[in-house]
Amino acid sequence: MASARPTKPKRRTKERVLEHALALYNRFGEPNVSINAVASDMGISPGNLYYHYPSKDGVTEALIVQHAEHMRALHAAASDVGDIESAWFFLHTWFERVWAARFLYRDQNNLLIKTRVLEATLRDLTNASIQALQDMLQALHTQGWTPLAPQHMPRVAQNMALVINYWLSFAYVRDPRHALEPESEQNAVLQGALNTMSLMLPYLSGPAQQHLQAVMAHYATEAH
Amino acid sequence: MASARPTKPKRRTKERVLEHALALYNRFGEPNVSINAVASDMGISPGNLYYHYPSKDGVTEALIVQHAEHMRALHAAASDVGDIESAWFFLHTWFERVWAARFLYRDQNNLLIKTRVLEATLRDLTNASIQALQDMLQALHTQGWTPLAPQHMPRVAQNMALVINYWLSFAYVRDPRHALEPESEQNAVLQGALNTMSLMLPYLSGPAQQHLQAVMAHYATEAH
Repeated sequence: MASARPTKPKRRTKERVLEHALALYNRFGEPNVSINAVASDMGISPGNLYYHYPSKDGVTEALIVQHAEHMRALHAAASDVGDIESAWFFLHTWFERVWAARFLYRDQNNLLIKTRVLEATLRDLTNASIQALQDMLQALHTQGWTPLAPQHMPRVAQNMALVINYWLSFAYVRDPRHALEPESEQNAVLQGALNTMSLMLPYLSGPAQQHLQAVMAHYATEAH
Repeated sequence: MASARPTKPKRRTKERVLEHALALYNRFGEPNVSINAVASDMGISPGNLYYHYPSKDGVTEALIVQHAEHMRALHAAASDVGDIESAWFFLHTWFERVWAARFLYRDQNNLLIKTRVLEATLRDLTNASIQALQDMLQALHTQGWTPLAPQHMPRVAQNMALVINYWLSFAYVRDPRHALEPESEQNAVLQGALNTMSLMLPYLSGPAQQHLQAVMAHYATEAH
């Protein structure tokens, strides 16, 4: 049956399912969105959606795999971070991607319990995040921006990864009615990037520290 | 009817419900434990349990309120932290209490969505945690252990609170089959306290930094 249909529109529907599911998951949380709600949001029949994704877990997995691919592409750029501005840009972009898939970050453990198939994906993503931050610190070290000895980088990178991973959860606990609403995006991304940068602040060389403090002061006025 | 019964055994059953529910929640996660499973674990009838707690949410709320009280008692000691050893002891105790109520830390957002009545409790607990860490930094500053200026303390305290709150979630994502099992307790508590301490390491005065590094090296050999 499948082979009788043209391939292109099918692909397009498959992509649209992910777009709509992502928007609804981000808004209401994955546990609160049914597959029928996604179909209804798209204006297609549940049967049409089931043809592409036989289960909701399939949709969720596809979204997480897609996010992991986006993150992998970003992580690959970590070694090119050559100064404070590009570190800021790197982390800001990172937080934009976290925000774009925030359903995953606000409910990671629950998704993990439900969908054991994601165990390896999420573990690898987390370990790759720590490695990317270590690569960034190493690049800044090579360019003379930080005297931090390589043996201390894993712990700093690990704490940075932890802050990135749970920044939105932390914001949510502190203000559940607003933190993850669309109008909070700019603030969440800025504050998250600022906090993550602040973890490496004390390890920078003198001029780099002043430079970062100026960058942070500039963006802190934009956040609230 | 209630007034006809003796008070003492009733209280005891109420306490036992919380003890058994806490152990089961910690082991299997709150969403996976039914109120009947708690009754069965205690060897009492569901009716007997319902007499004390008409709903599972009531049990969950009582456990979280109890944990918040334990934390409040600890937070009150923050201003008495006078040196590096007592900071270590303070944070180690903190992590022991987090471990004892780990069901809450591995599934905070989900509990928050389900039980809106907890919104204020969890928000206040989180804000009190940040304040306690600020009090600790201030006490260390007063005793001459850190030159960190008071205006920079909120950000450091906030990052420490974030690491404490999500340390177990982070460990769980990296190793879901072992991180929260009973045999991981010593390691989780030690590593969590070490990581939290490491966030203030760069802000300590020279001798205090060497002192903390020695403490960390000592305990790092016990962790793995």
